Parts: sequence; structure tokens; C-alpha cells
Amino acid sequence: MAAVIFQRLCVIGVGLIGGSLARALREAGAVAEIVGCGRNTTQLDKACELGVIDRYETDPARAVYGADAVVLAVPLGTMKAIMTAIAPVLADDCLLTDVGSVKGSLVRDAREVFGQLPANLVPGHPIAGTENSGVEASFATLFRLRRVILTPTENTSPAMIARTRAMWQACGAEVVEMGVEHHDEVLAATSHLPHMLAYSLVDTLARRDDSQEIFDYAAGGFRDFTRIASSDPDMWHDICLANHDALVKMLEAYSDDLRELAAAVKNADSDFIKQMFTRAKQARDAYCEKCGE
Amino acid sequence: MAAVIFQRLCVIGVGLIGGSLARALREAGAVAEIVGCGRNTTQLDKACELGVIDRYETDPARAVYGADAVVLAVPLGTMKAIMTAIAPVLADDCLLTDVGSVKGSLVRDAREVFGQLPANLVPGHPIAGTENSGVEASFATLFRLRRVILTPTENTSPAMIARTRAMWQACGAEVVEMGVEHHDEVLAATSHLPHMLAYSLVDTLARRDDSQEIFDYAAGGFRDFTRIASSDPDMWHDICLANHDALVKMLEAYSDDLRELAAAVKNADSDFIKQMFTRAKQARDAYCEKCGE
Repeated sequence: MAAVIFQRLCVIGVGLIGGSLARALREAGAVAEIVGCGRNTTQLDKACELGVIDRYETDPARAVYGADAVVLAVPLGTMKAIMTAIAPVLADDCLLTDVGSVKGSLVRDAREVFGQLPANLVPGHPIAGTENSGVEASFATLFRLRRVILTPTENTSPAMIARTRAMWQACGAEVVEMGVEHHDEVLAATSHLPHMLAYSLVDTLARRDDSQEIFDYAAGGFRDFTRIASSDPDMWHDICLANHDALVKMLEAYSDDLRELAAAVKNADSDFIKQMFTRAKQARDAYCEKCGE
Repeated sequence: MAAVIFQRLCVIGVGLIGGSLARALREAGAVAEIVGCGRNTTQLDKACELGVIDRYETDPARAVYGADAVVLAVPLGTMKAIMTAIAPVLADDCLLTDVGSVKGSLVRDAREVFGQLPANLVPGHPIAGTENSGVEASFATLFRLRRVILTPTENTSPAMIARTRAMWQACGAEVVEMGVEHHDEVLAATSHLPHMLAYSLVDTLARRDDSQEIFDYAAGGFRDFTRIASSDPDMWHDICLANHDALVKMLEAYSDDLRELAAAVKNADSDFIKQMFTRAKQARDAYCEKCGE
């Protein structure tokens, strides 16, 4: 069992990610007390019943009282309001970190709320999740062997980075550091763009007159391909707007490439099609050798 | 154990689909002898060793000799050459069926080869597969609880349809019938288009300077989303060209919708984004209730 890292951890937003983090830290013996915070008391009662948190507050300013670490696990569109609520009472030596999928917007929000970027702020992003949401979908091993990207700012204190690293390592994750902008570009490519493509495909098909029949004949490949279109629409709406610039760039690059493929199919350009499919298969197979599929 | 349906079945192309069909029919006791045919004798020797086929020929005309059923399980681009080779020797009472993913091209090829569409031709398409290929990837349960679409022509004899149905039912599949053109449209939407999108995404990312890092940070959603980009490039090249018309139409419809989404992201059009994601999630969840995810 690991040493206790936090005496009192406050998790704001006890859903899939916040709940899984709480479970993992508790299982690792890394935290003495966990205080939850949210607006939905049914969910918070459930979280208490499940033993994910010890108790909860619905007022963020009360929730962070006496905590030595606060984790923001709310949708991106809610981050600023929460930071505004806790800013007046947050202790300087209390770690403030988050799990948001976009880091540029979080840093912008923090700068506006705090005036300058606080030394105790360590923006973070665990590369883990499922298409399910809510505390009942949370589980302690969600972060095991997953990457967590920290994007410290120029003001972040090394001690706070070390504590955040220790927190994620206690969950079994591998921690890396990256610049804010670079993080947002990489995630636009590997996560945000694929979600857009999947949502868009399912919607294109769902709006057809024969959509019922279409879905009837969809096979296993389609099920896997569209799994991410079952993700939480509100969360993904927030991600789209928060990572707006990088995402629009990726969508445009992808659309150009798709247009080229459509032209090649139209013109029966065998060489183009074969070469492109072969390159893609090689890249995907190489990636999957590493991901252990 | 089911009754014997075929005394001598000839499977031309003993790969994932042809091999799995042979295994399933043998396990069901539905066939007395299975003759394989192909060009790659290493694969065919392997198929004999694995007990998938009893013996093989490399010359299609010799392979079909004395068979009461012939299954074409070769890439779409090879169908015409095979039919040309067997046409002079194929008995009128021998069932001729195929497993190709596009039915319009198969019917066109058959009409050209045979002069008119033969009464013993039953075009078919099992909606099953994996991203793997080759006889070693084949397994007897591949078609269990899967749909098989038959697209009989105006000349197809009802007795031949009945035998093809019996063959697939012996493999545990559910058999339905559909018009040729309609089949190709439905499959363009649910299978061919998603493959294009996945190939295109992986290729777009693979051609970036930071592609190595990009793939390093890809998570589980990306793995599922891109699984179909590991499919056989040659087979998918053939499908693209064979289903050219329906696929180009689908690619254009999809591109238009994706452009609309990109514009909505660019303009931070919250309502559009939320409504679209919500519609897509609902359609995908409804589909998956049926597919049992």
C-alpha cells in the first residue's frame, strides 16, 4: 500500500473520471478523506453509497475547505464557474488540478479568474475513458497503464507537479509532460477529430429515410467504428468549443484528404487507392503492435 | 447434425470467408467433400493441414469438376476471370454462388461471361468478417447469428435459392433477400463508407511530421475507430471500384455534412453541435440495444 499523499482530497464532479480517480486513490491507500462536490445530489448520494467518496457538499467553496488537493472533473464549459467559486477560499498550498480534455481553455479560464496563473495549478489530462458516464460507470483501474499528460504553466511550482505525478502514479498511470498548445493539437488529431467523424457518420445515416434498415445491416466493424458516437453530447460540445482552433484545422485537413479519396474513387484511380489503403494499414498495424491489440 | 446438402463443394478462394464457410459446413455435417481452389499453394497446403478442405486444385476449371456447388470467395476484381475459366465446364445443375461485398459488379460480370444470367447463379453476401485475412484467420462460427443477404436475379431458379439458404442456415446465419442495387446502397452506407473514413483518418495522421507522437497518445476510442483500417487494402480497393457509384454518392453526402459540422465548430454554433451529437448518440444507442453491446 502506497503512502498517503493527500489528507483531504476534494473531487469536484464525481462522474466517470472523477469517480474512477477517487476509487483508484482509495484503493491505493493514497488518500485519507475524499470530499465530493456536484449539483446532482442523487449522483452524490450514490457515490457515497458506493464508497467512492466519504461525504459531499453542493457548494464548491465549502467543498474545498481544508482540502490539500482539489481535482476539477467537470465539463470544460463549467471549469471557469467552479474556479470563480473557489478562488476566494482556495489555500495557496492546496494543489489545484483538472482532468479536462483541452488544456488551452483551462489555462485561459484560470488566468481570467485568478488574475495570473497560480503556482498551485497543474493542468492535467488522463488519456482514458469509456463511452459511458456517471459515477456508476467509474472503476478503480480506469487509469492503469494509461498515459496522463500534465501541461504545467510557466508559473507552476515543481512541488505541485511532483504531487500531481504521485497522485496519478498511485492510480497506475504513466505521467508525461507537454506544452499546452501541443497537447491540444495532439488531442485534436487522435481524439477530437475521430469523435467528430463518428458523430457525423451516425447522424448522416440516421437522417436517411431508410435509416432503420441501414442500421439493421451494419456489422461488427460499424459497431466498433461508431462506439465513440455514444459518448456524452454535452461533454463533447464543450470540447469542440474549447479546442475550436486546433479542431477546425484538423477537420479542414481531413476534409481535403477525404475529397482527394472521393476523386480517386470517382476516377477509378487504382494506384492512388491502393497506395493510400496500404499506407494506412501499415500505420494502423504498427500502432496496434504497440497498443497490444 | 444437419443433413448433407452438398456431396462435393468447391470453394474458390480459401481465405477468411471461404475458409470459415468450409469449416462451418463441415462442422454441421452439411457437406461430404470440400475441394479448395486458389493460386497460393502454401495457403492451400495449410488449408489441407488444418482440415478446412480435403484437397485442392489450382486450375478453377478442374476444381469445379463434379461439384454440386461452387462458392466464389475471391476478391471482387478476380470474380470475372474465375467465372470465365469455369463457364465452359460448369454443370447447369451446379449451384454457383459468391460472398462478394458488392453485388452489382458480380451480376454485371456474370452477364458478360455467361451471355445471360444463369438460373444456377445466386449472388450472396455474408455480413461478417474481421480485419484479419487468410485461411489461418478462419473459424467455424464466423457466420453464427450473422445476416447473409442473397440478391437473386430475375433468372435465378427458386430451387437454387433454397439450396443457398440451406447452406447459410447450416452455418447458423440468418438469410434475407434484397435487390442488387439496394444491397449495394445499404452496404455503401454501413460498411464501405466507414472503411473509407477510417483509412483516410489513419493516412491523414500518418503523413504528419509528428505522426509517431500522435499515435503514442491515441487511446482506446481511437483503436476501435480505426480497427477497420487494418483490413486488406487489395480487397478494399476492389470494393471501392466495384461499388463506385453508390460509394461516391455516400462520400459526397458525408463530406457535405462534415463541412456543415466544421462550419458550426468554427462559428461556435452551440445549438447545431449539441443537437447533432444528441441525435447521433440516440441513433447509435438505439442501434446498439439491438446489436447487444
